Amino acid sequence: MFASRLDRARARMEADGVDVLMLSVGSDLPYFCGYEAMPLERITMLVVPREGDATLVIPGLERARVHERPEIFSVAPWGETEDPIAKIADLAGAADTVAIGDHMWAGFLVDLTNQMPNTSFRRASSITSPIRQVKDAEEVARLRKAGAAVDRIATRLQRGEIPLVGQTEAAVSAELGRQILEEGHDRVNFAIVAAGENAASPHHHAGERVIRAGEPVLCDFGGTMIGDDGIGYCSDITRNIWTDDRPDREYLEAYAVLHEAQAAAVRAATVGTPCQDVDRAARQRIVDAGFGSYFVHRTGHGIGVEAHEDPYIVEGNTQPLAHGNAFSVEPGIYIEGKWGMRLEDIVAAADDGPDPLNRADHHLAVLG
Amino acid sequence: MFASRLDRARARMEADGVDVLMLSVGSDLPYFCGYEAMPLERITMLVVPREGDATLVIPGLERARVHERPEIFSVAPWGETEDPIAKIADLAGAADTVAIGDHMWAGFLVDLTNQMPNTSFRRASSITSPIRQVKDAEEVARLRKAGAAVDRIATRLQRGEIPLVGQTEAAVSAELGRQILEEGHDRVNFAIVAAGENAASPHHHAGERVIRAGEPVLCDFGGTMIGDDGIGYCSDITRNIWTDDRPDREYLEAYAVLHEAQAAAVRAATVGTPCQDVDRAARQRIVDAGFGSYFVHRTGHGIGVEAHEDPYIVEGNTQPLAHGNAFSVEPGIYIEGKWGMRLEDIVAAADDGPDPLNRADHHLAVLG
Repeated sequence: MFASRLDRARARMEADGVDVLMLSVGSDLPYFCGYEAMPLERITMLVVPREGDATLVIPGLERARVHERPEIFSVAPWGETEDPIAKIADLAGAADTVAIGDHMWAGFLVDLTNQMPNTSFRRASSITSPIRQVKDAEEVARLRKAGAAVDRIATRLQRGEIPLVGQTEAAVSAELGRQILEEGHDRVNFAIVAAGENAASPHHHAGERVIRAGEPVLCDFGGTMIGDDGIGYCSDITRNIWTDDRPDREYLEAYAVLHEAQAAAVRAATVGTPCQDVDRAARQRIVDAGFGSYFVHRTGHGIGVEAHEDPYIVEGNTQPLAHGNAFSVEPGIYIEGKWGMRLEDIVAAADDGPDPLNRADHHLAVLG
Repeated sequence: MFASRLDRARARMEADGVDVLMLSVGSDLPYFCGYEAMPLERITMLVVPREGDATLVIPGLERARVHERPEIFSVAPWGETEDPIAKIADLAGAADTVAIGDHMWAGFLVDLTNQMPNTSFRRASSITSPIRQVKDAEEVARLRKAGAAVDRIATRLQRGEIPLVGQTEAAVSAELGRQILEEGHDRVNFAIVAAGENAASPHHHAGERVIRAGEPVLCDFGGTMIGDDGIGYCSDITRNIWTDDRPDREYLEAYAVLHEAQAAAVRAATVGTPCQDVDRAARQRIVDAGFGSYFVHRTGHGIGVEAHEDPYIVEGNTQPLAHGNAFSVEPGIYIEGKWGMRLEDIVAAADDGPDPLNRADHHLAVLG
């Protein structure tokens, strides 16, 4: 699998005139070689010449963490007092064009630019993203498994099996994190819990605010499930709960709009449809209902080995959906000082129609 | 405080010929303005001209997360379909030299370089690190508080109050993580639990290996405590436990060497001493005892708002320690296939002598 992925990367390098691909921290590295770099001041770099063998440059003290795959790469550890930048530049030779990992620390790119002044650097995603964003059946199955795991947690929230009223947002967030791990993820990526007016901030940080009866709570959570091959796939879901049995009428009306907008966008996500049209499908319903100015973000993001990746479901992205694209569909309505709501599923585009990977109930959960 | 820190940064920019400082994800941003950027594909950037006002460019949907400080910076949100790179370049004007956040994603530096082809980029740490690495009394107090919190956890480990035998490394790691949060940290940075032969890998990832009676366990853990000002300070400690009352003689002999080496390095960490001499103080003892080739890493790293920062306690770093430097002293001995051991405290250099911020017992904890 890794060999085939690297072959595809090399074919793209050939087509794009890239001499060397360099991958460091981030999700490209595990995707292409099964190893994940620690985000530390000690640099790790997979150096992939268009022709010739790949080399994984690693800090010596992390050598034991590397599952060696001699058919894919050789390992070049560097010692604590060696200069790894010189080592990497040496492996790259006189490359005109290097595609460099998008999530590598910029400081290392400054160092490499100083060491390789005649080399032009571009984003590695120009090579890796077209490959990564088309998931094969095995990858979709892994995303589905991660999705089913967070669905079970969402269902517990909706049934009132996870205490909300009287708890702080932070305590509920910690409990969601615990359940994310218990349900088979290896990593918690986020667990947003936003009560009442706090939900008007889409990326609210769960805090000491105590959840009360008679208000809405937005929960947006997900993690990464890492397989035996070292590659992790992500989950991401958002559901909304009203904490007693008397939901506010204005909130309910907005929720009905959101629910229909989200469903419309999922239906629109057919193979061949430009990404921006999926955004428009959700947005049009929300605009028509008069909430347009309260839907302050794009409709979604791709998901796979990374929680956010291509394709983005946003106005201006004319890329047509392909079989195997996986992405979130998550419109929201946010009214400052009052409340916010967002409804999110992961969806895989497929030749026989949009394939939702989350199945937890989409209605507002009304407790009590 | 933020204003004074930015003043010091601007003075350094003046001295170093830097026109604009740009800070994004990482610890520089909260240190200089109290805001921490989310590590996402939506860029956040504090743009600080040497003369003139600073501007915090943020994704519009994160605006509610910003604690506005108009005396320090103005806020410039960008919309989902705007180009933030153009906005940032515009704020930078015709800068010849930009110092760019070391931990920003390299992909954004590629974009900025394309947008600003005549600008030379260098590491922001050339400006920020000399400021950050000298902690004032309040910062040392915060590091001491975080250190005392992990000391309490270490003491529980040493007293056998945290179950080890029969548990998986991963379960103990999760429990340490839970206690790190319970003891007042806001974030778990790592919780290495390495049993027996696994400890020979310094950065071992706690896994499904079940801890047995009659073997050593290395625990290295720490987190970040975030204050009301949005700035977090880190803890980091390593202790070793033998899981029954009959420790192996060879291990005990090595541990005695390690214990003495660590204490010698702490004693050596006086103001004015070059960092590499602290490394040498530890290393010499270990070399003399015949374990030199098993001490495979530097002696330590600076610590503060970031878990690893300047100054590094490593051969080749001739920088003399200054009052207010804070760093780890953590020699180790690693024998592949057998065991590994590391003993770590955080130490603040002070005019009246080295000030250890960890006080948990340094002896091998022998259970049972």
